[in-house]
Amino acid sequence: MNNKFEFDLKDLRNKIDNIDEKIFNLINERLKIVENIGIIKNKNNISCYVSKREEFILNKLNKKYNKYISYFTISSVIKKIMYESYIKEIYCNNNISNNNNSIKIIFIGGKGKMGSIFKNLFIKYNYNVSEINSKDWENKEEKLLNSNLVFICSPISKLNFVLENIYKYITSECILLDISSIKEKSINKMLNIHSGPVLGLHPMFGPNIRSITKQIIIYSNGRYPEKYKWILNQFKLWGVFIYNLDSNKHDNYMLHIQSLRYINLFMLGSFIMNKNLNIKEIFKISPPIYKIYLSILCKFFSGDINLYLDIIYSSNKSLNLFDEYINYTKNIYNIFSSNKKRNNIINIFENIKSWLNKKNIKELSDINDTLSEEIIINNF
Amino acid sequence: MNNKFEFDLKDLRNKIDNIDEKIFNLINERLKIVENIGIIKNKNNISCYVSKREEFILNKLNKKYNKYISYFTISSVIKKIMYESYIKEIYCNNNISNNNNSIKIIFIGGKGKMGSIFKNLFIKYNYNVSEINSKDWENKEEKLLNSNLVFICSPISKLNFVLENIYKYITSECILLDISSIKEKSINKMLNIHSGPVLGLHPMFGPNIRSITKQIIIYSNGRYPEKYKWILNQFKLWGVFIYNLDSNKHDNYMLHIQSLRYINLFMLGSFIMNKNLNIKEIFKISPPIYKIYLSILCKFFSGDINLYLDIIYSSNKSLNLFDEYINYTKNIYNIFSSNKKRNNIINIFENIKSWLNKKNIKELSDINDTLSEEIIINNF
Repeated sequence: MNNKFEFDLKDLRNKIDNIDEKIFNLINERLKIVENIGIIKNKNNISCYVSKREEFILNKLNKKYNKYISYFTISSVIKKIMYESYIKEIYCNNNISNNNNSIKIIFIGGKGKMGSIFKNLFIKYNYNVSEINSKDWENKEEKLLNSNLVFICSPISKLNFVLENIYKYITSECILLDISSIKEKSINKMLNIHSGPVLGLHPMFGPNIRSITKQIIIYSNGRYPEKYKWILNQFKLWGVFIYNLDSNKHDNYMLHIQSLRYINLFMLGSFIMNKNLNIKEIFKISPPIYKIYLSILCKFFSGDINLYLDIIYSSNKSLNLFDEYINYTKNIYNIFSSNKKRNNIINIFENIKSWLNKKNIKELSDINDTLSEEIIINNF
Repeated sequence: MNNKFEFDLKDLRNKIDNIDEKIFNLINERLKIVENIGIIKNKNNISCYVSKREEFILNKLNKKYNKYISYFTISSVIKKIMYESYIKEIYCNNNISNNNNSIKIIFIGGKGKMGSIFKNLFIKYNYNVSEINSKDWENKEEKLLNSNLVFICSPISKLNFVLENIYKYITSECILLDISSIKEKSINKMLNIHSGPVLGLHPMFGPNIRSITKQIIIYSNGRYPEKYKWILNQFKLWGVFIYNLDSNKHDNYMLHIQSLRYINLFMLGSFIMNKNLNIKEIFKISPPIYKIYLSILCKFFSGDINLYLDIIYSSNKSLNLFDEYINYTKNIYNIFSSNKKRNNIINIFENIKSWLNKKNIKELSDINDTLSEEIIINNF
C-alpha cells in the first residue's frame, strides 16, 4: 500500500517537473523574441514599457484563465515575466544606432553605485561618455571641452567643490545636471555658477535595482527646459516614470520622506538595541507586516549615516519638524495614559480614518496584502 | 517604412501572446495534477507544503535556466505557481476521508473573519463542526454536549463572558482553545475555569489571507499538550508553520510587535493628518520603501481601534514601554539638535549597525530589495 502511494506521488511529481520545464522553456523563448522587439523599439523611439500593452496582456490572460487560476497568480506571474522582458529589451540590446554618439556626456562621481546605473546606460546607448573621478581632476579641462552634458553624481556635500572646479571649462550651451536628494540648494548653486541649462533630478530608488524601467525619477526644472528635454525623453524610452516637482515642494516632501523617516528609524533602532531584543527570533515568529517593519529598519542601518546626516542637516526644517513630532508624541502619550480617555482615542482614530478615506487610500492599504503574501510565499 | 516596423512589431507580439497562452495552459494543467496529489497526500498524512520538494524544484530550474533568466524571476514565478498549487491542494480537495467526523468541534465567534478561516477549514476536512453564536446562547448546553474541542475566536474582551457561559457544559476531556493576541491572561483564565486540556494559539496573520499554508501560528501550552497534539498536526498538514512560545515570552514580544507599533503608527498618522500632507501625491512620487511605509500606516487605520486598544490596555507594560520610548526620543533629539554631536550620532549608528550585523540580519535587510521590486513591478 505504502509503495503504491509513493509510486503514484512520484509519477505525478514527474509530470509536474515536465510541465515546469516546459513553462521555463517558453519563458526563455519569449525573452529571445523580446530582444528583437527591443531592436525595433529602439530604432523607432518607442518606450520599452508600454502601459497599454501590459494592460492588454493582463486582461486577456485574466479573461481566459480566471476560472482556473486566481487573478493574483495570473497577474503576478505575467508581470514578473514582463519585467524580465523589459530588462532584456533595454540591457541586452546590442543593436543600438550610433546617432547618440554626437552627444558628449561627462560623468562626475560615476564610479559610485548610483552614478554607475546612469553611466552604464548612457554608455550602452552609444552616447559619447567619459568621466572625471576624484583622481583625475588634473585632466578635467581637456575632458570637459565641448561637453554637452555634465552629469554630477557626487554627494551633496561635495557639490560646491565640484561646481567650482568645473564651471570655467564648460560652455553656456552645456547642460548641468545633478542627482542629489535635496533640490532647492543644489539647483540654486548650479544656476549661480552656470549661465546655461540646469536640471535637477532625484531618482526615487536605491543602488540595488535590477533595472531602471518603471522606476521613478523626480525632476525639478532649473533653466532652459527645452534644451534638456532629450534627457527626459531618453529616460521615458527606458520606461522610467518621470514626475515634475518644483524644487521647493520637492524639498518639503522630502522632509517627511527622508529626514523624519531617518530620525524615526534611528530612534527605533537604538531603542531596540538598548532593549537587546532578540531580532532574529522576533523576526521568525512575526506577522508579515512586522517583518516588513523590521526589514525596513535593518535596511536603514545597512546604509550610509553620512548621507543621512547630510540630508537631515541640509535644512533647519528637519530638526524643527522633528522637534514638533517629539512634542506631538507627548500629547499622544497623555491621551493614552489617561484611562478615561479611551473615547478620545477612538474619536481621533476615526477622524484619521475618515480623513484617509477621503483621500481615497483604499488601494494603498491593499498593497499590504500583496506584500504580506510575498513575505509568506518567499518563506521570509 | 513606418508600416514595415509596425507590421514586424505586431508579428512579434502575436508570437508572444501565443507563448503566454501556452504558459498559462501549462499552469492550468499543473493545477489539475496537483488536485490528485492533494488526494494522495491527504490520505497519507503528508503536508501540502514539503520544503524539500520546493527546494528541489527551485534548484533544478535555476540550474537549468539561470544562464537565460534571472534567479529572481525563476524563483518568484515558480514560487507563485507552487503557492497557487498549495491552495488547490488544501482548498479544492473534495476527496477527504470521513475519519475526522468523530471529532466534535464547537466554534465560538466563528462568524468573524478570523474565525471563519479556521472554521471553514475544519468543515472542509470533515470534522464534526458546529458553532455557537451570540444569538443562540440558549442552545449552548445541547451544542456543547460531548464536544471534543471548543475553539474560541471571540475578541479578548469577551473571553471571560464566553468562558463563564460554557465551562459547566464541557467535560474534563474537552480541549479549550483560544486565538486571542495576548496569551498569558487568556490561558490563565482558561486554566482556572477548566480542568482539562488548554491550548493558546496566536495566528500571525490577518483576515485577508488567501490560504493558511506557510502562515505562522504561535502556540503556548496550557495543560496536557499530548491531548491536543492532533490539532497542531492538522495545522502542519495544511502547511502552517507552528512555533512554540511560553505565554509570558509571547506577551513580551507582542509589546513590541503589537502595542508599541500600534501607538507609533497612531502617532505618525495623526501627525501627518495635522500637517494635512497630500498623501496621494506623496505616494505617487515616493521611493518603494516609503510607499511601503505609507501603506502600513493606511492599513493600520483601516483596522479596528477597539481591538488595538484591547491589546494595548491588556497590560500596564504597554504604556510603560511607550513612556520609556517617548523619553528616549527626547535624548535622541538632544543629540541631533546639537550641531557639535555629529560624531556622537555616527558612533551610535555604527554601534547599532554592528549589533545588527552580529545578529546576522543581512538577509533581513535584503528583503527590502524584493519588496521594493514588487512595488515597482506592480506599478504601485
